Amino acid sequence: MTAEALRVALPADLTCDVREDDIRDERGREGIAPLFTALPRTVEEVSQIMRACAEAGVPIIPRAGGTGLVQGQIATEGPAPVLISLERMNRVRAVHPKDNIIIVEAGCILADVQAVAAEAYRLFPLSLAAEGTCRIGGNLATNAGGVNVLRYGNARDLCLGLEAVLPDGSIWHGLKRLRKDNTGYDLKNLLVGSEGTLGIITAASLRLFPRPARCGTALFRVTSPEAAVDLLALAQGMAGELISAFELIDATGQELLAETMPQVRLPFEDIPSWSVLVELGTPSLIDPNDLFETLFEAAVEQGLADDGIIAQSEGQAAELWQMRESIPEANRLTGGIAFHDISLPTSDIPEFLALAEAMLAEMAEVRIGAFGHVGDGNLHYNLFPVAGRAKTEYAQVAAGLTRAVHDLVHDFGGSFSAEHGVGRMKSAELERYGDPVRLDAMRRIKTALDPHGLMNPGAVLASEAR
Amino acid sequence: MTAEALRVALPADLTCDVREDDIRDERGREGIAPLFTALPRTVEEVSQIMRACAEAGVPIIPRAGGTGLVQGQIATEGPAPVLISLERMNRVRAVHPKDNIIIVEAGCILADVQAVAAEAYRLFPLSLAAEGTCRIGGNLATNAGGVNVLRYGNARDLCLGLEAVLPDGSIWHGLKRLRKDNTGYDLKNLLVGSEGTLGIITAASLRLFPRPARCGTALFRVTSPEAAVDLLALAQGMAGELISAFELIDATGQELLAETMPQVRLPFEDIPSWSVLVELGTPSLIDPNDLFETLFEAAVEQGLADDGIIAQSEGQAAELWQMRESIPEANRLTGGIAFHDISLPTSDIPEFLALAEAMLAEMAEVRIGAFGHVGDGNLHYNLFPVAGRAKTEYAQVAAGLTRAVHDLVHDFGGSFSAEHGVGRMKSAELERYGDPVRLDAMRRIKTALDPHGLMNPGAVLASEAR
Repeated sequence: MTAEALRVALPADLTCDVREDDIRDERGREGIAPLFTALPRTVEEVSQIMRACAEAGVPIIPRAGGTGLVQGQIATEGPAPVLISLERMNRVRAVHPKDNIIIVEAGCILADVQAVAAEAYRLFPLSLAAEGTCRIGGNLATNAGGVNVLRYGNARDLCLGLEAVLPDGSIWHGLKRLRKDNTGYDLKNLLVGSEGTLGIITAASLRLFPRPARCGTALFRVTSPEAAVDLLALAQGMAGELISAFELIDATGQELLAETMPQVRLPFEDIPSWSVLVELGTPSLIDPNDLFETLFEAAVEQGLADDGIIAQSEGQAAELWQMRESIPEANRLTGGIAFHDISLPTSDIPEFLALAEAMLAEMAEVRIGAFGHVGDGNLHYNLFPVAGRAKTEYAQVAAGLTRAVHDLVHDFGGSFSAEHGVGRMKSAELERYGDPVRLDAMRRIKTALDPHGLMNPGAVLASEAR
Repeated sequence: MTAEALRVALPADLTCDVREDDIRDERGREGIAPLFTALPRTVEEVSQIMRACAEAGVPIIPRAGGTGLVQGQIATEGPAPVLISLERMNRVRAVHPKDNIIIVEAGCILADVQAVAAEAYRLFPLSLAAEGTCRIGGNLATNAGGVNVLRYGNARDLCLGLEAVLPDGSIWHGLKRLRKDNTGYDLKNLLVGSEGTLGIITAASLRLFPRPARCGTALFRVTSPEAAVDLLALAQGMAGELISAFELIDATGQELLAETMPQVRLPFEDIPSWSVLVELGTPSLIDPNDLFETLFEAAVEQGLADDGIIAQSEGQAAELWQMRESIPEANRLTGGIAFHDISLPTSDIPEFLALAEAMLAEMAEVRIGAFGHVGDGNLHYNLFPVAGRAKTEYAQVAAGLTRAVHDLVHDFGGSFSAEHGVGRMKSAELERYGDPVRLDAMRRIKTALDPHGLMNPGAVLASEAR
């Protein structure tokens, strides 16, 4: 079958012309135009489309919500692909409250999964900025993170089983409702995080949790990044797994908010150099604010914090979270030179921040913005123009700054992609920093499962390397 | 190189003659005698031995503590292998209390890892009957479970990174200290649970946890298996992730204790049909026994429990746990017809138990003993001779009983191996019950990473199927 005959060979209601949104990623970058967009409604239709593509030798790009940040969802080289959008596979197949399990199709929007879980008095804890538009198949394909990883794990940890179509079109029925199943190789975790390069996830069996009876939110003004890390250990000693989120915020984050989104209320009169937003979810017998009082007293006594706000109402808690969650938007409105999604051993974060600042000062005049999930060792470490200079003035140095930041991260045993994945944007980083034995094993696995290299070619493993 | 020349080619202090324990598994089954036992002290020596074996075309059986229950550690067919024991790689390489991470070599005994963590005021929560002799490399290779999976996950969930030698002798340096790292395929989880068939784990980076400030233990006499499942949901609603263990115990478990181990004190005067042992680990602000009182009142009100013991001292808690932990030994002393390590969707357990009992009654006169990690849907479902009959009288029917139990488990979407793995004992079950598409993917991955089939051949994937 030729590429031209491919669309004709498929039922007309399974395909459409490429729509404007199909070829753009979240940051507006445009990819190579696909031949057409396929819109399967069932796993059998996904299989049918993939078999037809395999026969025609046409590459496939799977698409869920399209909110990924590393160009995993748009082709940047090679022949025109077929885009397979999972948007019509958006049913919740089953909710099992007693088993704390929900079974959803890959096209379900994350916020909808959260809402269905809430209706069953359960919590689906995956939570991230794009939750209103991202789809669960993409969350799994990229092993998404977010603000609740500290307590509940990332997308991988929340997934118990998968239904998926492998590159040859065969369907794996692996939607088990089991918490323990030691019967062979972990195909589930191989597909989770493979960014559509080993197959297409069509449905998933996901873990639910009891909803904490009470929630508390507090903002601590900490005396340094080191104090933030020590506060984490102190809080974990007191509250253990009851800590749902532990987010570090620097001065730049709040300054950019003041500059670009004045409608967002800042919690302190003066912007603190460093603050930490903490959320606790507790059983009904514990008042989270009692825990916060105890924690705050100990933190002040140990010199870790010198001011703090314990939210006294849901409204006040929402306001603190709004401040935190608006930082990415303020960053976008400001316009950054370079964005980095890095992770480090948590205790190394203070030293990394000091060394990185000194290193960058030697290289260029930049404004550093660091915030993120410090409880997971994950920082969004971003560079902005200094006052009076435009982003365009940094065009020549941006790549060098990113290289220097990632090199330093690598020296600390860290990762150049904590939660966003590799996609096409970071495949060169993977070549540079990845362990060569692991890379070789990855290539062998890719060839074993996708011998013709048709699944999302160029994502994760650079094309020339396959 | 010939097989004969292989030992001579290695440094003399890296090998020894096969020792008696090297060829027996935990249940005393003897395997094919290996050519010799290799005793590497470093990952480089493991690599050296594996390269030599690859060159000579000699299969390898990796061995950690040798406590596995499914014949993953003894060859039952094929040419004589080399046994590679990790016993000399038993160093704790580093403890990072602030990061809640410990880095250990594969030969470390599990109880030693727990002890080192405790010295740093941390918890390494993997806990199982064999912890005094099993080694962490084997725990990871088999993705071990145990009593704390409900709260902390299984061996897979506790592992952040690996150092491993792949079948061609290449060394993967993957001992990251990161909680988030989304940079390509999940090689860690592919090796974890692969039972030595894809490489040898030589060291691991493992998660530690804050030690709960207070612990509580209680035994509930529940009115039925259904009541046990409902009690779990009730307890999770009240205490969420503070529940460390939730273990179901049937009457047979305690009866066999009374018959074979009279020194073990039974908690109730009459043996209850069903009871549940619950452990809570709480922050200092919560008295676990307050939680238990509240839970017990609600359970009685809802007709789920009609008696209970809340341990008033560490001694009393230890006594309750001793009763639970002695059941496997009492089973061994009794001598069973067939043992099953099954998992089911938790809410299906009551129906499964009723159907299985009725089904087995039609097939043979047997005594059923069921106990296990009901919080994970994991039951150890065992069959014993009825009074006055010997185990040998069941020799003709044992395989049929196991087949019927596993068929029924499969009908419920359950697993024939919840936590023990596949090994050689259950590879036929994997062929029978495994999803064919997943099995095909497993074989492709095996061939991609171990093209000559030298790593633990016959384990997990039956030899003829490769």
